[in-house]
Amino acid sequence: MTAKQGEPDPRAVRDAGAVLSAEAARFASFGWMRGTSGNVSLVLSRDPLRLAVTVSARDKGELTGADVVVVDVKGSAVPIDGAARPASAPSAPSAEAALHAHIASVTGAGAVVHVHTVAAVAAGWHWPSGVELEGIEMLKGIGVPAEGVRVTIPVIPNSQDMRILGERFERARRPQVPAAIVASHGLYAWGSDLEQARHHTEIVEWLLELALAAV
Amino acid sequence: MTAKQGEPDPRAVRDAGAVLSAEAARFASFGWMRGTSGNVSLVLSRDPLRLAVTVSARDKGELTGADVVVVDVKGSAVPIDGAARPASAPSAPSAEAALHAHIASVTGAGAVVHVHTVAAVAAGWHWPSGVELEGIEMLKGIGVPAEGVRVTIPVIPNSQDMRILGERFERARRPQVPAAIVASHGLYAWGSDLEQARHHTEIVEWLLELALAAV
Amino acid sequence: MTAKQGEPDPRAVRDAGAVLSAEAARFASFGWMRGTSGNVSLVLSRDPLRLAVTVSARDKGELTGADVVVVDVKGSAVPIDGAARPASAPSAPSAEAALHAHIASVTGAGAVVHVHTVAAVAAGWHWPSGVELEGIEMLKGIGVPAEGVRVTIPVIPNSQDMRILGERFERARRPQVPAAIVASHGLYAWGSDLEQARHHTEIVEWLLELALAAV
Amino acid sequence: MTAKQGEPDPRAVRDAGAVLSAEAARFASFGWMRGTSGNVSLVLSRDPLRLAVTVSARDKGELTGADVVVVDVKGSAVPIDGAARPASAPSAPSAEAALHAHIASVTGAGAVVHVHTVAAVAAGWHWPSGVELEGIEMLKGIGVPAEGVRVTIPVIPNSQDMRILGERFERARRPQVPAAIVASHGLYAWGSDLEQARHHTEIVEWLLELALAAV
Repeated sequence: MTAKQGEPDPRAVRDAGAVLSAEAARFASFGWMRGTSGNVSLVLSRDPLRLAVTVSARDKGELTGADVVVVDVKGSAVPIDGAARPASAPSAPSAEAALHAHIASVTGAGAVVHVHTVAAVAAGWHWPSGVELEGIEMLKGIGVPAEGVRVTIPVIPNSQDMRILGERFERARRPQVPAAIVASHGLYAWGSDLEQARHHTEIVEWLLELALAAV
Repeated sequence: MTAKQGEPDPRAVRDAGAVLSAEAARFASFGWMRGTSGNVSLVLSRDPLRLAVTVSARDKGELTGADVVVVDVKGSAVPIDGAARPASAPSAPSAEAALHAHIASVTGAGAVVHVHTVAAVAAGWHWPSGVELEGIEMLKGIGVPAEGVRVTIPVIPNSQDMRILGERFERARRPQVPAAIVASHGLYAWGSDLEQARHHTEIVEWLLELALAAV
Repeated sequence: MTAKQGEPDPRAVRDAGAVLSAEAARFASFGWMRGTSGNVSLVLSRDPLRLAVTVSARDKGELTGADVVVVDVKGSAVPIDGAARPASAPSAPSAEAALHAHIASVTGAGAVVHVHTVAAVAAGWHWPSGVELEGIEMLKGIGVPAEGVRVTIPVIPNSQDMRILGERFERARRPQVPAAIVASHGLYAWGSDLEQARHHTEIVEWLLELALAAV
Repeated sequence: MTAKQGEPDPRAVRDAGAVLSAEAARFASFGWMRGTSGNVSLVLSRDPLRLAVTVSARDKGELTGADVVVVDVKGSAVPIDGAARPASAPSAPSAEAALHAHIASVTGAGAVVHVHTVAAVAAGWHWPSGVELEGIEMLKGIGVPAEGVRVTIPVIPNSQDMRILGERFERARRPQVPAAIVASHGLYAWGSDLEQARHHTEIVEWLLELALAAV
């Protein structure tokens, strides 16, 4: 793999930064990214895999287009071709960027959303082996028929080791379901592009709120 | 029926698109149209029946005035007189447009709102044979006296076949109540115009939230 | 009483309309005025008593400064000196304007807020003889000490007859508490001016939400 | 201590007023500062300790940059060097300013946030001896490991005597936890700067909402 050759050009990163910061602000406005939690990512290239992901430790409602880093499949920062960042603003990817990259790699997703919602953690506690759903119209929004198909939103035990979390994700994921709860942590959802990832996030959150309301 | 003769002119469709997209954005801001769920429609003509309805599979908070289609009483798309759409933006009505049209046809409503709220689905699960309400001041907002009259928000079993759903609607609907829950799906409400349909939607949703809070 | 002499001049009414419509939009944004419910009023003169009150049957998030009527102590509309309204916009006071006027008359309040909140109705159902509160810091915001004083938010049975409702209000009201729940209906709160009425409304609603959360 | 020498200059106070009023408006928009409740403060100097704190009895969503007062370690107002305020706007610090100053003094915090949330009071009632939390990813946002460490959000009995409240705070506080609930009252959270204080506030509120959801 020749890293140089495949690197995304600065303009593509800047464009990704603009849409990712706007998207993060949208989720932050829902209260789904309290503190500096959560992050959003966009696949820039497949081979080699490169994702633009929102930076760590910053208020997700106040990011600018420059507040993204590019990471490889392991979540390690990749220098952007010719776009030296000012030393005063050293942007680091969150450790979670590795799970974003892993999800994009394993599922083929073009965008990944990670939010910290109360409902996701509460549902993970209530149904530790997965949230089973069937016969709800809203399921169509994640590509599941509204009738006759039982699906499970998987719940993965949390880990601070992204390699372990990645393995757990691979074992637990359901090809039918573009989302997973990380227990005591939050929700990941993904889609072919950022808009679909947004909608999958919204729909799974809605389903979890409904499931909890019916307990 | 001569279709040509009765078709709405492009300006009327454009005007309808402007108000429908704004109305959809308003409901989306409440979290009642998560994903790409929900739709709003406006009757353009009665004979033949024509409705402008928001398009399917688009974020309901980000529609433009062009994001409507015109449908007939069966929910089939009707070409707009002289207003060829660009091939790059083929807008399809949701299958649910057929229920919008059916409701407008059966009730005489001038506008129909369909939202996916957690409370509507939770209430439909809790009271599968209908949500009974009596003696609440807010009922006056849907035309029911605040005292002495018991009404039922009907709950209709969901179906993917709009013909079946239409029949269920006709059997279950209560002339007194300008709303119906579709079980495991969401809420329909209607009114003589879009403003009244909005208010009926808000009021029924409020009543369902109250009913659930008092369980 | 010479009505002519004491009438508010059109400018005062216009000024009141500007602040009342803005205030109504603020409460509507909280979801406390769903449909066309709720109203806000401001005392224009004491002798004779005249209140500007938001009009009935209009979306409370979309009022303009012209959407107020002036009423007397019985809630009857009073013509505004020299300010003929266009015939196309006949604005009627809500029947509830009579209770606004009665509250202003009995309590000496300068402004009254009436909202339809789910918590107010749910609390009225849960504590039909009044919501007792003691030892909460937030009580200071309605003029009650945070320690050692037990107060009751009165709950008044609803009525469509404003004379009866006025009598019930007089019997039930607690001079210490600038608010009352009308059962199965909503909340009234008042203050020396509109800002204080706003804050009393917010605080009592907060206290009711807390009381319900602790059930 | 020569007070004159150490006083903050008017420009620093004006700058603090600008960020504090914006921050207060942000929390007010969440419904966490109903009525005129809550306040936000920023340390201007350490020796002597001076804090800019939002004024009492004003709507926290409508403050201007001028709506701050400077207080000393006891919460007493300190005149701002050369910046005479107009007599028409006498701004008084809340009594709670003394607890802000005490917290800044004891913990070394650079900013303190005090909000009145329903969840904080409800949690204080439910867990009067402190809210125990462990193994939640969100804890990392307040500097606690996500695994293996059990922490307690302390709950302090309320008092109208700020000296007593300060003593209770000192006895109850946990160096690991940058927040404390004042029972039947609200939440205090702090950080090295205003942004960190904001994030600590948001995270602790989120944790309390989660804890209550799981009851």
